[in-house]
Amino acid sequence: MSLQVFNTLSNKKEEFVPIDGKNVRMYACGPTVYDSSHLGHARMAIVWDVIQRYLRSVGYNVTFVRNITDVDDKIINRAKELGISPDQLARQYTFEYWRDMYALNVMAPDFEPKATEFIAPMIQFVRELIDAGHAYEANGDVYFDVASFNDYGKLSKQNLEQLQSGAREQVRTQEDLASIKKNPVDFALWKSADEGELGWPSPWGYGRPGWHLECSTMIRTVLGESIDIHGGGEDLVFPHHENEIAQSESLFKKNMAKYWMHNSFVQVSAEKMSKSLGNFKTIKSLLENYSADTLRLLILQTHYRNPIDFTADSLAAAKTAVLRLVRAAALDAELEQNGDVPAKVRDAIAETEKQFSDAMDNDFNTAVAISALFSLGDKVFQTKDASEQKAYAAALVRLAKVLGFTLADTRKKIEPETAKGVMDLVLELRKNARENKDYATSDLIRKELAQLGINVMDAPGGATWEKA
Amino acid sequence: MSLQVFNTLSNKKEEFVPIDGKNVRMYACGPTVYDSSHLGHARMAIVWDVIQRYLRSVGYNVTFVRNITDVDDKIINRAKELGISPDQLARQYTFEYWRDMYALNVMAPDFEPKATEFIAPMIQFVRELIDAGHAYEANGDVYFDVASFNDYGKLSKQNLEQLQSGAREQVRTQEDLASIKKNPVDFALWKSADEGELGWPSPWGYGRPGWHLECSTMIRTVLGESIDIHGGGEDLVFPHHENEIAQSESLFKKNMAKYWMHNSFVQVSAEKMSKSLGNFKTIKSLLENYSADTLRLLILQTHYRNPIDFTADSLAAAKTAVLRLVRAAALDAELEQNGDVPAKVRDAIAETEKQFSDAMDNDFNTAVAISALFSLGDKVFQTKDASEQKAYAAALVRLAKVLGFTLADTRKKIEPETAKGVMDLVLELRKNARENKDYATSDLIRKELAQLGINVMDAPGGATWEKA
Repeated sequence: MSLQVFNTLSNKKEEFVPIDGKNVRMYACGPTVYDSSHLGHARMAIVWDVIQRYLRSVGYNVTFVRNITDVDDKIINRAKELGISPDQLARQYTFEYWRDMYALNVMAPDFEPKATEFIAPMIQFVRELIDAGHAYEANGDVYFDVASFNDYGKLSKQNLEQLQSGAREQVRTQEDLASIKKNPVDFALWKSADEGELGWPSPWGYGRPGWHLECSTMIRTVLGESIDIHGGGEDLVFPHHENEIAQSESLFKKNMAKYWMHNSFVQVSAEKMSKSLGNFKTIKSLLENYSADTLRLLILQTHYRNPIDFTADSLAAAKTAVLRLVRAAALDAELEQNGDVPAKVRDAIAETEKQFSDAMDNDFNTAVAISALFSLGDKVFQTKDASEQKAYAAALVRLAKVLGFTLADTRKKIEPETAKGVMDLVLELRKNARENKDYATSDLIRKELAQLGINVMDAPGGATWEKA
Repeated sequence: MSLQVFNTLSNKKEEFVPIDGKNVRMYACGPTVYDSSHLGHARMAIVWDVIQRYLRSVGYNVTFVRNITDVDDKIINRAKELGISPDQLARQYTFEYWRDMYALNVMAPDFEPKATEFIAPMIQFVRELIDAGHAYEANGDVYFDVASFNDYGKLSKQNLEQLQSGAREQVRTQEDLASIKKNPVDFALWKSADEGELGWPSPWGYGRPGWHLECSTMIRTVLGESIDIHGGGEDLVFPHHENEIAQSESLFKKNMAKYWMHNSFVQVSAEKMSKSLGNFKTIKSLLENYSADTLRLLILQTHYRNPIDFTADSLAAAKTAVLRLVRAAALDAELEQNGDVPAKVRDAIAETEKQFSDAMDNDFNTAVAISALFSLGDKVFQTKDASEQKAYAAALVRLAKVLGFTLADTRKKIEPETAKGVMDLVLELRKNARENKDYATSDLIRKELAQLGINVMDAPGGATWEKA
């Protein structure tokens, strides 16, 4: 079975045939760095991480680019509230994003361009659009002339008339009424800014680039005029990706991306998860209590185009399920392979590997691919033969790695809060021993704790302890 | 006493008088991101962190800029070895640098420009130097014409003749012999690169900026033509800072910085710590065993212009000393202030605060300022009066914060490795109890561990445990 991917552009699954043989150029829209990352960011990052890991595992040479939007009204406004520079705010949240991605075992992209690094090529892009008759200047702003591009709406399956009447109904504010746009659906390529605000000089005066322009420009500069896969969350289909297509395709007269792929949302309590609803969980807070593998399992056990309903129960179930895989995988490290693996075991592994790749070839159906991992995990414990266990465990580790699971063995890793609970127990045992005049035990406790760098101090209210 | 700072330019202490009243613009050279950060980076970062914290604490409006060098031969060569892009390598070590700085409680600078963000203004700077007759093109490279700048050598106290004869003696390689420089001490502003290598188009062809140019350009763009303080490690005096002065002062005809400040080295076993000697310790590995406060104390107990001899003993001593401060500071959080603080306590605190600021005003003498912290820590334990203890502890926390100490109470924070040792003890106590037929105790242990999420499993070889 060859790899099939669902293309938003054609609204159906298509065979995956890259433009240039084994070389795959792919781009996914990254974060706007103005706040902490939440589960929605984790899903987006993990889905694209798995797609590129799988493509690499089957032999493609992948160049994966994910951008960072570090100039944006949301960044500027948040920085103003906090009394720091937009630069400092963007750096802080870029750091936190990297920290979270690292903790989630999401591979760093091959290139990760930032908007502020691409101001000059963005200005150049606008200049070319104006020269080609697809954009116009008005009072220091530059707008894309949507009517000049015949294919506008092809990704989101809308036509210009619908969009125009919709846009007219939304004209409410004074600012909108005073708009100097030719057409209400025209979008900004360059926005004028006041001196003192964040901005750059340009042929149209001091200002900032529009958000849509960023991705078109980076793709052109880093990957080329036409790429294989362009992806992002489904909320980006319109207007963001539609506008990217308008910019790039009106200028280059070729398809911007051969395959457009979009992942669905994470819902918390049946509502779309978003900051405005106030119900988002940060990745950092989740990782304090759950492992990266647990979050990854929770996300990948749903196909990327279906919404995930996030609940405390589903998180707890994922934790238990990961522990089963971890136990099985640990045997790969512990056991030695002695002699040949029996043919029936080799066949069983080959069959499971085929189930895995068939599932992944079917539009990256990780929900089914994961069942292959559990099936291998079951086989590890169904046999008592160490050599067979080793073979199944090794196969499990191999496939798990393609999906980005670490299967790190955390069974012996006690967090500081739990360790405090264990220390309470030890002091309780010491108190009981002293009350029973069992001084051998209480001395043993004090001595062994001291060797660990923990001092026990007796006081009128009971014994306390302190780590040196 | 007014603030005195040692100025490398005049080779003496001078009164600190900023160019623009209470506004202080300062710049420190940041890391080249091609490897993990070591103790030398920690010293540099902590010294500049304390300088800017102290200036802010006495009422200056500080704008602090620290750059990131993300294009450099070292980065390009390392990336080639690892088979990844220079961009990816630079991002990885930028992330690690930020992670280490965050862990060290080093404040993020107000601006942190990266070289790759400043290619266009660097090209502009070179163009202006050529127009002004201070630089010349040769075969796609551009060199600064050192003979055109009369003050060359003023920072490092060398004259051009010495430098020229020194440079001639060092001409050894074929590349040097083929050099097209007018003068052996001339340095590159722009270096040509082959297509396919990392580079940017310029009026002199495809290439890369020289390292020295980066800081001159960023300072001009972000802070202005003349700033208050320019700092860095003492190894940067020549040629880096000397070349920055040549670039900026030949163009702007004014002093680049009013005060040039340089911190000394960290030596490990009496040798200069550097990667080439292979004896560096990474910040990350040090922080696995020592707190940020311990490393900060180790660094600040030596004046910034004296070398630090780094030994395991000095680290252990710093750890013990920090624990004393932590114990005293914890009383600030635990105790309430009841009634007025007696006059003698207020006076003692005021006197210690004056010792602290006199020391800091004396060219940031943190070695003496720290003794004020220990003196307050001693006073906390010399009195039994809770109200007095609280007053001393609060003063200690205030001053410690100016030096960037967190005094975070980690006495109850048991690391996973130590927790494993405690678990060994618990299972030993359970084994002893079972041998003595004390089943009440062994049941208590199993039950309380289960509540903590730790399962005990009996096996022929003895009991084992696993965290769920």
